[in-house]
Amino acid sequence: MLNATAHRHQVVIVGAGFGGLEAARRLGGQNVDVTIIDRSNHHVFQPLLYQVAGAALDISQIAWPIRHVLHRFKNVTTLMAEVSGVDAAHRIVQLTDGTRIAYDTLILATGATHAYFGHDDWAQYAPGLKTLGDALSIRQHLLTVFEQAEREPDAEQRRRLQTFVVIGAGPTGVELACTIAELAHEEIHEDFRHIDTRKARVVLVEAAPRVLSGFPETLAEYAQRTMQQLDVEVLLDHPVTECRADGVVCKDQFIGAGAVFWAAGVRASPVAQWLDVPADKAGRVKVERDLSVPAQPEIFVIGDAATLQQENGKPVPGLAPAAKQEGRYVADVIRARLRGSAPPAPFRYRDYGNLSTIGKHTAVVDFGKVQLRGRSAWVVWAVAHIYFLIGVRNRLLVALNWLWLYIKGERAARIIISRKT
Amino acid sequence: MLNATAHRHQVVIVGAGFGGLEAARRLGGQNVDVTIIDRSNHHVFQPLLYQVAGAALDISQIAWPIRHVLHRFKNVTTLMAEVSGVDAAHRIVQLTDGTRIAYDTLILATGATHAYFGHDDWAQYAPGLKTLGDALSIRQHLLTVFEQAEREPDAEQRRRLQTFVVIGAGPTGVELACTIAELAHEEIHEDFRHIDTRKARVVLVEAAPRVLSGFPETLAEYAQRTMQQLDVEVLLDHPVTECRADGVVCKDQFIGAGAVFWAAGVRASPVAQWLDVPADKAGRVKVERDLSVPAQPEIFVIGDAATLQQENGKPVPGLAPAAKQEGRYVADVIRARLRGSAPPAPFRYRDYGNLSTIGKHTAVVDFGKVQLRGRSAWVVWAVAHIYFLIGVRNRLLVALNWLWLYIKGERAARIIISRKT
Repeated sequence: MLNATAHRHQVVIVGAGFGGLEAARRLGGQNVDVTIIDRSNHHVFQPLLYQVAGAALDISQIAWPIRHVLHRFKNVTTLMAEVSGVDAAHRIVQLTDGTRIAYDTLILATGATHAYFGHDDWAQYAPGLKTLGDALSIRQHLLTVFEQAEREPDAEQRRRLQTFVVIGAGPTGVELACTIAELAHEEIHEDFRHIDTRKARVVLVEAAPRVLSGFPETLAEYAQRTMQQLDVEVLLDHPVTECRADGVVCKDQFIGAGAVFWAAGVRASPVAQWLDVPADKAGRVKVERDLSVPAQPEIFVIGDAATLQQENGKPVPGLAPAAKQEGRYVADVIRARLRGSAPPAPFRYRDYGNLSTIGKHTAVVDFGKVQLRGRSAWVVWAVAHIYFLIGVRNRLLVALNWLWLYIKGERAARIIISRKT
Repeated sequence: MLNATAHRHQVVIVGAGFGGLEAARRLGGQNVDVTIIDRSNHHVFQPLLYQVAGAALDISQIAWPIRHVLHRFKNVTTLMAEVSGVDAAHRIVQLTDGTRIAYDTLILATGATHAYFGHDDWAQYAPGLKTLGDALSIRQHLLTVFEQAEREPDAEQRRRLQTFVVIGAGPTGVELACTIAELAHEEIHEDFRHIDTRKARVVLVEAAPRVLSGFPETLAEYAQRTMQQLDVEVLLDHPVTECRADGVVCKDQFIGAGAVFWAAGVRASPVAQWLDVPADKAGRVKVERDLSVPAQPEIFVIGDAATLQQENGKPVPGLAPAAKQEGRYVADVIRARLRGSAPPAPFRYRDYGNLSTIGKHTAVVDFGKVQLRGRSAWVVWAVAHIYFLIGVRNRLLVALNWLWLYIKGERAARIIISRKT
């Protein structure tokens, strides 16, 4: 066992997303030993993943080595490893390589992955956007399709290759569709000789009767109008019934496509199975008001892997700020327990607003009472995102990249990589 | 055939490295149709590849989409495709997908790849550094080994994992070994808890009796001393006789290693086979004084795929400036032929000097009569490399990245990516 010789209280955190990382920081320098385990070596700023997919940002601008982010906390150990399960009876986390790690307190912050509503075979045709690897795959696919179209002698095939379908009109789907439309229609058309990328079709397909269902109706309508100005076709009430290598079927209509991307549904990581505890339909563990697992106060589940009803009856949303607040909260619960002091009041989510960009010049922002849209909302969005990026250097580089993109219309990261090239 | 309807003189360029790209630019706007074919979508600034491998620079900082670099030349078409052969009798370039492209004049600028002296199976254990894909593989391997060592319970295995062997002490090998040593010894040791990366072993293995054989003896000696100060072990007169998954055998000595990298030999791309013409030992086509293939004046071979003896008896070196000069020269030959004017004088390589960094603070520069070393040479190197980077934005970003690395000792790009993460 990797930490068998330790004597202090052992906290193990699984997952270094917004929630897990925040918990580790808040426990840094305290009188506990913390081990944070993630299967990748980096924390990703997920809200900007679509910009990596759209070739506007490079990977190192939105990702940081976890162990470097935490390096000044000498009581925190980072492990790059994959967890295969939890032995709650013996308080052991099991890794896929057979290693066992003991805990006194466990924080599970494993996030969510794409859900294909029972059609897992669709994943190969309609990749989703949750990780840096996903973002790079989507970027490669997107850029490669234009290269194929440029070489394609058949006009119909060229039209099909230059049709892009995004499934799901939440913020990720909207942002991805708009970034593809701007790339094709405004930025790269002068680079090609045989195709006119300004005629590329970008189709956003949504099963529900409206876009951005998490936002107020007025902002959603504004978003839809703006998307139409960007030449994104929005198909509402169009549930997808089949994803294929050459396109999708929705509402009995086949749309041939060169690339299909999935932004329609997520499912929590298998934490509920690991613990054998009740979960909601999306696999999220139903946690207590202190974010612990029912009848297992030494195990906490936070972020997208958990679900908790707020006082207003709505669940805490699956957003980065919510996960961060939960990470901070469970760290405070653990600190109170170690001190023997009274536990903090039950967790309450503070809603600082909800944002989504609609292309590179406009956005919608919902602060509850105040709502913004258009250019001013975009400025709020940009300032908030630059502010929350971790390193000073990254903030500067991302700001520079955006400035360049907006002034010159040049994307920095239009690079297709394979082992061969 | 992709260009069958064209009426103007057709120039086809295979390869968009320094030579091919320069030829395309010089033919841009002229009264010819130019098609430039490369199997990747980007031009790479190869002299800085080792910094991508060493996680100091990100990929988009040293790579640019070929079609974007050439987009303002409307007579130039870029194709991302792989060439399978040349039918010189019918003046056709064949692509792997069966497409055939007719040429009136052909420029082959396909570069070189690693050569394992007949041991092609070593490639899997000792990857080389020629492409962005190579650089990313090396970066992943390098960073992953430290993660493995951090989790490894066995002390001997930990020592082996933290041993890095670089084979070949030319500029690439020297630069790679130094960047690994600085990464391990100076920059990341505070990020780990179970290993001390300052004790990592970096071994540079060379079959010849000295390092940097292309440089004067005094500079080579200086480089070797500086490397020893950086704790790089230099083993001269140590030809490698075996590469294995767990290390290398050289001069009857086994060196266990977590990672082995190859910088020992290159072989030209199979241009000589395509054309069925004489080549030297490294597969380079022996070209005429105007860089054309003997008895085939409509075919030129330039850069690392060609060899030409200079008046001083030495071959034109396999360096970026030489390839660029050759690209410009053949474009001028073609322009003269089209105008019907006298051909330019035979090609002469202008030697502007030879540079290599020895770590991130020093370098050696050989201007022939003048030789520089140490910090001043590094400044010359940095200015030259920033200057020759293509875009203004990239120059700025690379300069910023270096500044950050040198001030804060933080590498920007320490990100391990896999499809799973």
